[in-house]
Amino acid sequence: MSGWAELNPSPRTIMTPGPVEVDPRVLRAMSYPILGQFDPEFTSLMNDTMAMLRSLFRTDNRWAYPIDGTSRSGIEAVLVSLIEPGDKVLVPIFGRFGYLLQEIAERCGAEVTVLEKPWGSVFDPEEVIAAVRREKPDLVAIVHGETSTGRMQPLADIGRACRELDALLVVDAVATIGGVPVEADAWCLDAVIGGTQKCLSVPSGMAPITYNERAERKVLKRKRVERGLATPGAAPGSGGGSVRSNYFDLGQLQDYWSPLRLNHHTEMTSMLYALREGLRIALAEGLEARFDRHRRQEAALVAGLRAMGLALYGDESCKLPVVTCVDIPEGVDGESVRSLLLDSFGIEIASSFGPLKGKIWRIGTMGYSCSRKNVLHVLGALEAALIRHGVKVDAGAALQAALDVYAEN
Amino acid sequence: MSGWAELNPSPRTIMTPGPVEVDPRVLRAMSYPILGQFDPEFTSLMNDTMAMLRSLFRTDNRWAYPIDGTSRSGIEAVLVSLIEPGDKVLVPIFGRFGYLLQEIAERCGAEVTVLEKPWGSVFDPEEVIAAVRREKPDLVAIVHGETSTGRMQPLADIGRACRELDALLVVDAVATIGGVPVEADAWCLDAVIGGTQKCLSVPSGMAPITYNERAERKVLKRKRVERGLATPGAAPGSGGGSVRSNYFDLGQLQDYWSPLRLNHHTEMTSMLYALREGLRIALAEGLEARFDRHRRQEAALVAGLRAMGLALYGDESCKLPVVTCVDIPEGVDGESVRSLLLDSFGIEIASSFGPLKGKIWRIGTMGYSCSRKNVLHVLGALEAALIRHGVKVDAGAALQAALDVYAEN
Repeated sequence: MSGWAELNPSPRTIMTPGPVEVDPRVLRAMSYPILGQFDPEFTSLMNDTMAMLRSLFRTDNRWAYPIDGTSRSGIEAVLVSLIEPGDKVLVPIFGRFGYLLQEIAERCGAEVTVLEKPWGSVFDPEEVIAAVRREKPDLVAIVHGETSTGRMQPLADIGRACRELDALLVVDAVATIGGVPVEADAWCLDAVIGGTQKCLSVPSGMAPITYNERAERKVLKRKRVERGLATPGAAPGSGGGSVRSNYFDLGQLQDYWSPLRLNHHTEMTSMLYALREGLRIALAEGLEARFDRHRRQEAALVAGLRAMGLALYGDESCKLPVVTCVDIPEGVDGESVRSLLLDSFGIEIASSFGPLKGKIWRIGTMGYSCSRKNVLHVLGALEAALIRHGVKVDAGAALQAALDVYAEN
Repeated sequence: MSGWAELNPSPRTIMTPGPVEVDPRVLRAMSYPILGQFDPEFTSLMNDTMAMLRSLFRTDNRWAYPIDGTSRSGIEAVLVSLIEPGDKVLVPIFGRFGYLLQEIAERCGAEVTVLEKPWGSVFDPEEVIAAVRREKPDLVAIVHGETSTGRMQPLADIGRACRELDALLVVDAVATIGGVPVEADAWCLDAVIGGTQKCLSVPSGMAPITYNERAERKVLKRKRVERGLATPGAAPGSGGGSVRSNYFDLGQLQDYWSPLRLNHHTEMTSMLYALREGLRIALAEGLEARFDRHRRQEAALVAGLRAMGLALYGDESCKLPVVTCVDIPEGVDGESVRSLLLDSFGIEIASSFGPLKGKIWRIGTMGYSCSRKNVLHVLGALEAALIRHGVKVDAGAALQAALDVYAEN
């Protein structure tokens, strides 16, 4: 006996901007026995997943499949495959995850220009478009929903301009996919990366991506077949110009996801089951109905927080519907409130990063966690925690305000 | 309704060199509700996992944790973090996965020298040691268990020599970890990458790694804090000399796995549950007992195949215990036999790659799939499939030979 305790996680109400609670049907899917990666039954599930991802991303792109890693693995796969060392890349930044795009692009060898907005706001699309005209980047990388600040960047105008000016537009939609409209084709997005552990309510572990033919052309230009797979006579290709990563080489990955099924990694069977089930559930609910549910819960949460006397952080006109950022009241230790919520109520809300550390709480209303029950629980518990920390609140008002919103809808 | 069919995978007996059947207790672990990544209960499970990985790798290294991706993500993380562009890397190759090490090292910007052995054999350690003396590489990367050919490379002498000659030794133990002894400390291995979906019987999705202080020194030399996490005043570090990947930067990853818990990716909750449970089960069985079980099942399988009149592929003296390669008899369509096994018996065995495509079958005896029941099923079914394909076999002999082996033990 090795003496390690059996797994026995406590039940949690997870109201962070991800990871959030997983739909029980998705949990069940992961408990099914696995199939081999080249078993026709399994490749058929892979094909289902691609088709469902096309619906999710609202695209007719041929390529829509998951990268086998957490969300940022999808970002890195797209950037390392589309950026050649020396390429000019423009990154408009309005929060932490913009810096991540900058960092990854720099590591890919890009010559990166950044535009920065104060945290809490987003760009006027014309500012970004003017920079694209000025800098003539090969690629523009931008965040759609910035969870660090709870802001959402409008993309349609930027997309049209990038298309016209022949820059590839790569969008980090990790936080928005499945909870807020993301229109890959209508907004002219050349590549989009989604996340699983947020509005899709699938555990972290895969990063769904899609890219169009404009992006694929760049991928194909740099493609080579893996050494050790090339049959005798066929050259495996030289190292020159090839993508700096094997794991994230979209050229090899698309051969694996195509009918060629050219061996690359060993697909994550149980995570693929989970993603397929999460997508099936999202499409069965209907994307419009799902977006509407997210808006409704946000409205109730916001009404409750305001009734409690709390101030929301950031520019309201560009609020990300699925994340609500709250100013921590003067003199209150934000971490102490979070600990009380977790330890006594089993509720998790988030802190923030960098300049916002200790300044705001972030409350997610995402996917399976985005429910009336959870919104009411978090409001009731937060009120009690604030009173416990000496904050004067109009006791009882938060829940009444939220219930009023539900009564209207 | 989206109309997608419910998930309903057929039951399979998976006798490939991975992925193999998952222990039902591991499947159950994945069905548990998730915890947030910074929930103290979850970070405690992360710490358990690190401790168990140290036992698995037989090491006192501080660093032993999973990379969030499939097995090759672990290889890439180690190589991209330890190789600086221009570094000299030696890769002794005796099968497909040696070429993968070469390919990844080249993509990391290394100046790569390869040694090649005909497939089906391994290196005399003195050949590798002579090359290390001659080439003076910064790093040597080698496969322990080569599943493409079913061979296993002895490593202890090579390890001692690399330590003496001051080259870092990186070992791909994806196929052997948990099924065959892998002694990170005793063999002087500086970094080791294991796999989950083989002898550990956890689904593909994580790549456990360990590395020692020699390797960590190189990691720390190149370390920088991620942009967007640096607090005001602290410099995020320049791009120069930094690791070419953010996702695979061990310097950032070890801060995430340390008490610092510096945010990087969102840990794969359910996969972490699965890995922890798989490790708990392996350590509860006892590593020695587990290795012994793998040897016993191999002996029965080999006896059965020989009694059936089949010839084993490759040099017997360096056979990988957990993969048995069989010559496909003259005139037999190997893929047709595999299809009959899958479609009628629900049994999956593997074909091979490159020069061995169509020449051999590969039968795995790994982890939960490595059981008496499964060995007997595959022998009985293969015999029937061969008879169906016109091969003359001594009907009934295979199962008797295997039962004889079990009777002796």
